[in-house]
Amino acid sequence: MVVHDRLLDYYNQVRQQTVALTKGLSAEDLTVQSMPDASPGKWHLAHTSWFFETFILQKFMSQFQWFNQDYCYLFNSYYDTVGARHARPQRGLLTRPSLDEVLNYRQHVDAHMREVLTDRAEEVEALVTIGLHHEMQHQELFLTDVLHMLSHNPMHPAIISNNNEVLSQSASTMNMLSFDGGVIEVGALTEGDNTWQGFSYDCEQPRHKTLLQPFKLASRLVNNAEWIAFIEDGGYDDSLLWLSDGWARKNQEQWQAPLYWRKLESKWYQYGLNGLRELDSTAPVCHVSYYEAEAFARWQGKRLPREHEWELAAHNKKITGNFLEANRWRPQPSAPNSESFSDIYGDVWEWTQSAFSPYPGFDPKQGALGEYNGKFMSNQYVLKGGSCATPSWQMRASYRNFFYPHQRWQFTGVRLAEDI
Amino acid sequence: MVVHDRLLDYYNQVRQQTVALTKGLSAEDLTVQSMPDASPGKWHLAHTSWFFETFILQKFMSQFQWFNQDYCYLFNSYYDTVGARHARPQRGLLTRPSLDEVLNYRQHVDAHMREVLTDRAEEVEALVTIGLHHEMQHQELFLTDVLHMLSHNPMHPAIISNNNEVLSQSASTMNMLSFDGGVIEVGALTEGDNTWQGFSYDCEQPRHKTLLQPFKLASRLVNNAEWIAFIEDGGYDDSLLWLSDGWARKNQEQWQAPLYWRKLESKWYQYGLNGLRELDSTAPVCHVSYYEAEAFARWQGKRLPREHEWELAAHNKKITGNFLEANRWRPQPSAPNSESFSDIYGDVWEWTQSAFSPYPGFDPKQGALGEYNGKFMSNQYVLKGGSCATPSWQMRASYRNFFYPHQRWQFTGVRLAEDI
Amino acid sequence: MVVHDRLLDYYNQVRQQTVALTKGLSAEDLTVQSMPDASPGKWHLAHTSWFFETFILQKFMSQFQWFNQDYCYLFNSYYDTVGARHARPQRGLLTRPSLDEVLNYRQHVDAHMREVLTDRAEEVEALVTIGLHHEMQHQELFLTDVLHMLSHNPMHPAIISNNNEVLSQSASTMNMLSFDGGVIEVGALTEGDNTWQGFSYDCEQPRHKTLLQPFKLASRLVNNAEWIAFIEDGGYDDSLLWLSDGWARKNQEQWQAPLYWRKLESKWYQYGLNGLRELDSTAPVCHVSYYEAEAFARWQGKRLPREHEWELAAHNKKITGNFLEANRWRPQPSAPNSESFSDIYGDVWEWTQSAFSPYPGFDPKQGALGEYNGKFMSNQYVLKGGSCATPSWQMRASYRNFFYPHQRWQFTGVRLAEDI
Amino acid sequence: MVVHDRLLDYYNQVRQQTVALTKGLSAEDLTVQSMPDASPGKWHLAHTSWFFETFILQKFMSQFQWFNQDYCYLFNSYYDTVGARHARPQRGLLTRPSLDEVLNYRQHVDAHMREVLTDRAEEVEALVTIGLHHEMQHQELFLTDVLHMLSHNPMHPAIISNNNEVLSQSASTMNMLSFDGGVIEVGALTEGDNTWQGFSYDCEQPRHKTLLQPFKLASRLVNNAEWIAFIEDGGYDDSLLWLSDGWARKNQEQWQAPLYWRKLESKWYQYGLNGLRELDSTAPVCHVSYYEAEAFARWQGKRLPREHEWELAAHNKKITGNFLEANRWRPQPSAPNSESFSDIYGDVWEWTQSAFSPYPGFDPKQGALGEYNGKFMSNQYVLKGGSCATPSWQMRASYRNFFYPHQRWQFTGVRLAEDI
Repeated sequence: MVVHDRLLDYYNQVRQQTVALTKGLSAEDLTVQSMPDASPGKWHLAHTSWFFETFILQKFMSQFQWFNQDYCYLFNSYYDTVGARHARPQRGLLTRPSLDEVLNYRQHVDAHMREVLTDRAEEVEALVTIGLHHEMQHQELFLTDVLHMLSHNPMHPAIISNNNEVLSQSASTMNMLSFDGGVIEVGALTEGDNTWQGFSYDCEQPRHKTLLQPFKLASRLVNNAEWIAFIEDGGYDDSLLWLSDGWARKNQEQWQAPLYWRKLESKWYQYGLNGLRELDSTAPVCHVSYYEAEAFARWQGKRLPREHEWELAAHNKKITGNFLEANRWRPQPSAPNSESFSDIYGDVWEWTQSAFSPYPGFDPKQGALGEYNGKFMSNQYVLKGGSCATPSWQMRASYRNFFYPHQRWQFTGVRLAEDI
Repeated sequence: MVVHDRLLDYYNQVRQQTVALTKGLSAEDLTVQSMPDASPGKWHLAHTSWFFETFILQKFMSQFQWFNQDYCYLFNSYYDTVGARHARPQRGLLTRPSLDEVLNYRQHVDAHMREVLTDRAEEVEALVTIGLHHEMQHQELFLTDVLHMLSHNPMHPAIISNNNEVLSQSASTMNMLSFDGGVIEVGALTEGDNTWQGFSYDCEQPRHKTLLQPFKLASRLVNNAEWIAFIEDGGYDDSLLWLSDGWARKNQEQWQAPLYWRKLESKWYQYGLNGLRELDSTAPVCHVSYYEAEAFARWQGKRLPREHEWELAAHNKKITGNFLEANRWRPQPSAPNSESFSDIYGDVWEWTQSAFSPYPGFDPKQGALGEYNGKFMSNQYVLKGGSCATPSWQMRASYRNFFYPHQRWQFTGVRLAEDI
Repeated sequence: MVVHDRLLDYYNQVRQQTVALTKGLSAEDLTVQSMPDASPGKWHLAHTSWFFETFILQKFMSQFQWFNQDYCYLFNSYYDTVGARHARPQRGLLTRPSLDEVLNYRQHVDAHMREVLTDRAEEVEALVTIGLHHEMQHQELFLTDVLHMLSHNPMHPAIISNNNEVLSQSASTMNMLSFDGGVIEVGALTEGDNTWQGFSYDCEQPRHKTLLQPFKLASRLVNNAEWIAFIEDGGYDDSLLWLSDGWARKNQEQWQAPLYWRKLESKWYQYGLNGLRELDSTAPVCHVSYYEAEAFARWQGKRLPREHEWELAAHNKKITGNFLEANRWRPQPSAPNSESFSDIYGDVWEWTQSAFSPYPGFDPKQGALGEYNGKFMSNQYVLKGGSCATPSWQMRASYRNFFYPHQRWQFTGVRLAEDI
Repeated sequence: MVVHDRLLDYYNQVRQQTVALTKGLSAEDLTVQSMPDASPGKWHLAHTSWFFETFILQKFMSQFQWFNQDYCYLFNSYYDTVGARHARPQRGLLTRPSLDEVLNYRQHVDAHMREVLTDRAEEVEALVTIGLHHEMQHQELFLTDVLHMLSHNPMHPAIISNNNEVLSQSASTMNMLSFDGGVIEVGALTEGDNTWQGFSYDCEQPRHKTLLQPFKLASRLVNNAEWIAFIEDGGYDDSLLWLSDGWARKNQEQWQAPLYWRKLESKWYQYGLNGLRELDSTAPVCHVSYYEAEAFARWQGKRLPREHEWELAAHNKKITGNFLEANRWRPQPSAPNSESFSDIYGDVWEWTQSAFSPYPGFDPKQGALGEYNGKFMSNQYVLKGGSCATPSWQMRASYRNFFYPHQRWQFTGVRLAEDI
């Protein structure tokens, strides 16, 4: 019973959270796809439901029938073993099913999932847990994808209010805090624990030892004022600061500032889900690629952290911060004069210089769910700490997010490090 | 008063016809763009209203104010002289304004246009006339663009019913009818006539003499059964039948049949606005490119008509046929055993071998409206006769439609010709 | 015997002319390919020999053996019916056979062709004639392709001397000469005449009547000074002057002047086979696309000629001018104060507004040689009159050259026309 | 004096080795570029000389003058700080300077370098050392680039003889050898040692400790017979075996076998510098991408080694094997029945699963030479051990070669590893 009540409660909260994100968005907003990397909001709503229908209801529901056989094809993502699927760049062509039909689909799945969670909670706990974590990942993508799509609208639509905020006045000092390094343990605290409490992804396992040299880590994130200084110092025009691939990409895509920055009459603005607003100089810089982050660090005579340096620094910190549930969906300035770390969790994902690669002893799970993370282990970089669009339940020190070094539409920022 | 009543009536009919086309389509359906060549339905609804607001209301309405200044940017198409505009391939990213706002915009424009048409009909007749012809062109594009977008949906949505039609059983005979040629007059009957009755586009002018050799023209359009024979004879695999550019395009886009044809278990189907239906063997072939049409004609030992051959054959024919107002929006089989021409108007646009180029004495109009046709006079071919998606008011023997030889999403078909 | 002597003489002259073009060029120069449209010089040398080996020696030579079986694959161009062929964009990867081997191949073919021409001249006259005309076309391409390749070399290599020329001082007046039009005969004077004297290409046939309206044609070509005026008046930046496709291409390829023009310290230079030289203001403008030519004409309030207007004006003019045999390989200023036409032949190919399309009654020849011209009848424009790289034997009033409207690496220029 | 004699001797040997590689190649062979990743042979000959002229002669030669000022532009590679440079993909358009001129340039540089090496050896030792190592890297690229270019020739040219080799009959057993792991030292043995003996690249530094888990490493390389088994088991068609990026690339480039493999009448052949030869089943597989290597390892239930696992296994092995100096330029079968490692050095570069990233404490050198390795630290993987085209002087356990995971034109192969 305990499992049942608890899991059902988690299930209800996560699923409701997803739908709550659609507030202020029209069926049109949720249908359009702005680039192959991003999916329409409606697709996220449907795909996360398809996950439960396919991997749980199909097996555990009595007298199972597909809600709509076509959805198996339309809302499969990259699970090749589950069958053919609609091509990713064409997700935005699905004007049908309508938003209403997709919301009905969610309710159908939820009703039957509640039955299964009532009757067979222990059997399905592991699968439901992974399903809810999967859904939380899509909550973040829902926001970043909607933001990317709306950013193309010259009318700069806002879907959340600005909450009468005043722009902050003074930034906290950035201190470089020292760490000894040595042999430390990293990775998921538990392995093979399929409970909600013990959940971690395959790529965080197994927990293992690694050796770190002494290093320093910045007490706070790089902020917008510092980024403007980088721009004004010609940072985007000095090839010596950039990785070769980064320089090529910068030129190809003509980057001159972070994504969503706009310069109007010599003043910088930033587009966000609250519309086009004057840039807050003390807020963490956001929507920068790995290449930009890396160039900025070199410009500062520093470097990006390694993933396990970050993990060491964060491992005993409380998991609190500006997460999705705060409904701000944009990074906030650090508290001024913080003595030690600030922003270590939430606000922006922090690029590390660690390539996303398998841990020693990594064993990709077999079957459809096992396609999950191992297949992405090339050309991507690990990011740590979560962002203002990350559900807090997802977060832990061992969590490894990963994106390509040119990608900018996630809430990604920079914490500096250096060797001692 | 006469001008006023008549024009107002035309205005009302054309504008209502446009909105009537949205029946059965959702806001989602009308927002998405499936390729750069095609525009979202919502964009067509707004752009045609922008035309009246910009070229008429702005000048003739008392106490004019823009409905929404942003729309000038969003819904301008290619009128460079009128100002900057939203990039064409990004029209599908405009989830806002919503469909409701666009329909309000139409009502706003209509209300003020009715005032102007009541008060100043004579002054605006020429502009209103061109505006309505422009809107009728967009009615056809509305249908072809929606069809193209929906064709990407694996669920094969139908937006019109099939009307319980039976597939026709017997095709009419294709006869090659002889014409003497000689010096004939071609082009618009009137020039500089800005009335509704006298309207023609700049590219149809001036009326002039041309010399034709004797020729034959087929009594009816090529039908689907004949096209299947072409396919089965290896027509898509024999480079000798194809223009060099056509062969390259066919290979690049992997054409093996007309657009929207699907082969399921060795039977041919065609997707249309009435869904996926078994192919009607006696209906005119549709959605073929110039390249395919030209290859088919060569396979038959024949050729495509010249635009003025077609014009000669059609010039005294009644303008009647399967047009947009029939609400069928797909080509219909010819009446069997027709003695002379059938389908000369309506059903499908007929590719001619004539490049779209200026008539002797062609004088492109100055200013924004003058950007209209002359700038497209390269690389495109003339099509004649109108289609099942063409408003009948648009049609006349001198009408020159034009598309690129690789384009297939219009209702385009084939009538054969040969030299004598 | 007459046929034999005459044909052999033509054969020897044309074949030697080709080899003579290699003077001053290294094996390296003749191997590299600078774009898919252009072929390496070595390829031209080999392909023209392959033509004689395949279409004549194979059939008429006693005890025929292939010189090298691989060459059939390597040096076939677009004759699909003759077998598989090396992909055009990869011609520049053929470092082997070496230039020496290709020159040996030419000698081998020539030795055997001379035998055939001695023994069986009447039988092969038609084929040899077409082979030599084909070779003359490749002579021109040889020069334009070598020029294009060398133009990428920052050292501006010259392969011919400048002949101590002085830049001309005064341009002749451009007069607009009037023509009555009417029904005229156009096309090849003879048809089905396979002798050297009677030769014409399939696309020039059949001779037929056409009707022209009255028109004017400029007495001389547009010159460089006039083109500079166009540039300085913002011609490359005014979208109203350009065809829609032309404007897109111009932006894509960032044209700001004709190909091979370079501006160094506010002075214009032109790269040519004689190196980088100061621009001669009175020489005909050269290396402009159809799109540029068309925009220039509109800027002048004029238009480009139709192909048959040009043909009418030229039909009784002597075929003399600055052709390939003059070994200048760049256009020359017109004689000042010419009363009537100048430059009608030679110097630069003159763009016409006529799409390259079949004449009434056009019947493409069957078989491999028949693949020749008909398959290119889409998207290209007719050019008239020959250039400084055209062998004079090729020229006649009915000759129809054709290129795509964006192409600029041929010696292409502009003569203006207008309606009366 | 010791420095002088020794360095001069190294200089002479390395420089002569480069020129010796041109044997059997024509000026044409050395001019053409087959893809942007590869450079023409002539370019390598010139660029390596430009390096000495720019970084040494310019500073240390008395009365220095540029051999040819244009060469600074033409033969600079990626040293942005040294000035503008010719675009990499256009290196193949440089038919001039000729091969003879480039060889003269080499002699000019060599003559003056010998003077400098005689007079000022100690001052230039560090620079000469890096210059010679740089040149040795280009020796390998010279061979791989020439091979890639010649592979496009349908005549399959051979530039070295096959040496009457018999294909080997029996493969050695592949044993998985165990290692304990633990904290080990990796990286260059010396740091800041600029002598010939102490040389290492910046990216190998600093030497530092790392922690390895226990692992196994295969006693020999994967061979061609094993790769055929992978192909025949559907390895190229099973998405579950592939990284997501690898699967996309495989489909895009239509890989069905290693680069240079050809299947003729159901038998496998391999193109190499000795021409097209029947595949040697016991030779190491070569010319596979990281993606293929990784998929193969997964198919085997194993994985690729980490760079430091390889380094641990190799660190006390003698540096001997099938290197460039053997003049075989293709991998050789392992000795059968080897007890421990074979092929650890030479034959093929071994892909590791380690991303090319900076070592802890890495400090990129300042200035032009410092642009060297740090800027490539993204998206590439480390390869170890050298190949049949690597000069043996270059090799050491800490050497980190790096290429993109899709690249196949280097001599790259596979050694398997697994966790214990």
